[in-house]
Amino acid sequence: MTQIRMAVVGAGSWGTTIASVAAANTPTVLWARRPEVADAINATHRNPSYISSVDLSPGLRASSSLAESVSDADVVVMAVPSQGFRETLQQAAPHIRPWVPIVSLSKGLETGSLLRMSQVANEVMPGHPVAVLTGPNLASEIAVGQPAASVVAIDDAVIATALQQLFSSTTFRVYTNPDVIGCEIAGVVKNVIAIASGIAMGMGFGDNTRATLLTRGLAEMTRLATALGGSPESLAGLAGMGDLIATCSSTASRNTSVGVRLGQGETIEDIVASMSMVAEGVRSSAVVLELARQHGVDMPITEQVVAVCHESKSASEALIALMSRQARPETQ
Amino acid sequence: MTQIRMAVVGAGSWGTTIASVAAANTPTVLWARRPEVADAINATHRNPSYISSVDLSPGLRASSSLAESVSDADVVVMAVPSQGFRETLQQAAPHIRPWVPIVSLSKGLETGSLLRMSQVANEVMPGHPVAVLTGPNLASEIAVGQPAASVVAIDDAVIATALQQLFSSTTFRVYTNPDVIGCEIAGVVKNVIAIASGIAMGMGFGDNTRATLLTRGLAEMTRLATALGGSPESLAGLAGMGDLIATCSSTASRNTSVGVRLGQGETIEDIVASMSMVAEGVRSSAVVLELARQHGVDMPITEQVVAVCHESKSASEALIALMSRQARPETQ
Repeated sequence: MTQIRMAVVGAGSWGTTIASVAAANTPTVLWARRPEVADAINATHRNPSYISSVDLSPGLRASSSLAESVSDADVVVMAVPSQGFRETLQQAAPHIRPWVPIVSLSKGLETGSLLRMSQVANEVMPGHPVAVLTGPNLASEIAVGQPAASVVAIDDAVIATALQQLFSSTTFRVYTNPDVIGCEIAGVVKNVIAIASGIAMGMGFGDNTRATLLTRGLAEMTRLATALGGSPESLAGLAGMGDLIATCSSTASRNTSVGVRLGQGETIEDIVASMSMVAEGVRSSAVVLELARQHGVDMPITEQVVAVCHESKSASEALIALMSRQARPETQ
Repeated sequence: MTQIRMAVVGAGSWGTTIASVAAANTPTVLWARRPEVADAINATHRNPSYISSVDLSPGLRASSSLAESVSDADVVVMAVPSQGFRETLQQAAPHIRPWVPIVSLSKGLETGSLLRMSQVANEVMPGHPVAVLTGPNLASEIAVGQPAASVVAIDDAVIATALQQLFSSTTFRVYTNPDVIGCEIAGVVKNVIAIASGIAMGMGFGDNTRATLLTRGLAEMTRLATALGGSPESLAGLAGMGDLIATCSSTASRNTSVGVRLGQGETIEDIVASMSMVAEGVRSSAVVLELARQHGVDMPITEQVVAVCHESKSASEALIALMSRQARPETQ
């Protein structure tokens, strides 16, 4: 096999970070929508807009031409927000070569269709293998070489092993997992639970409350994933529990921050108006709940997040509703 | 059934907190080893040594006579450190009435015998039902009425439901779980993982690294519990994941603090010498590893904690050893 060339589509903090990791292993092009960002990366080996203090791998090349970025690639990594995923992939599709695997870094469900990003990729590029890279991966920490681990999920052992090698570094360990559904659902729902966890923090509650919310949150995440055909082991692993803990621990997480501000009494309208980019969990919460109802899955934490984000319920009322449910056996 | 009278043996922060919660539901006596502590609690409704700023339930009575404390009790709650558990229960045993359930709050294994506390209770008081109360329960937060949840584990639905009611409050929700082994092993091993998590914090690593350690830590905790006959569901619940997250998030945890200081380069000898009470995880780690080896269970994080706490390995070497293991499928 000749060398695998990689394209990373999207130069946000996570796309930039993963492109820099990959560029140390293989020729990699990073697509940035804005030409001035691509130029700056090529000239200074830093991304002026995200993780701007980090020196990127010297071999990383950037381009603002989507066609040029993907036309030579043997692997295409999608690192755009979930609501732009379909459109961007449709634009790239005519330039992507046959058989090329698509790797999704995006954590969301498509509004309306309720599709996971791997399903969107299957619709846009039928026949192409689709993988998901997910885990406890705060970009700012991985970019500076802190030890971390992640999961590449795809039901094809050959591609899984190849991707594992491309994304690994001495400080970034990549595990393989055949369960795309479980890994992807975990990545979506954890942003919703992070809002709930943030609310508890914003209201001044401590580690017990947050640990309880995370535990019950993982339980409802697992119920949804298994109802859709995912494996509970994935939820207990890095893509589920790991990513949930990292996101809910980090005040750098947009979703956690939204929750903290809600818990402090701000309205969702004011918070959304003040953010340059809406936290994925705000929108996802409603889509997750719709999916859960279609499959008859009980998701009490998600329900309360939807009530706060979309139905004007106060955060304190929502948290109290959650914590005062009837005592009962733990696994019912 | 007449009213259930409760005795709580041990007036540390957790024993005092749970006695205060129970005293709001039922007549409760708290045994304090030192008469001046018992007198102060009776006179001021505060414990001068632990959570001293918290007003205890007005109905809580304290005594420094172990015989008097337990002789009238219909439930005896053991809230002493695991190394004093057998001896204290032996002293109480002649005064405990027939059929009275014993509830363990202690999280440790007996050195030498490798027994869980419920097993020690069974040896000392054969025929008495034994339950375990465990979960994400930082005493300082529960004592001030923050929302939290816990698990009462016993394979007897009648006793489980009775205990559930005795330990519940409007802010403290108690779930029942029949799996004593799983809940108890979780409570022991989480202190060991907390040391590893603290080491990563002390070395300056962030949320990804800690989330990864917790996820892999829960996996090895689950392997040990299931090898001993416990249920993986308990480990995924409040007694496992919940308590692990709360302990590893809290700098108030003695075990996490030991890890942080190790990560900052202090020696275990200096740390132990400076603490009034040794963190359970330091001693437990070696006992857990011995139990794991007896049952052929791989516990790589525990191994490294033992190496640091008992074999003079440096904390940074241990963490690097952990994070550089061979990449592989996640569930192997």
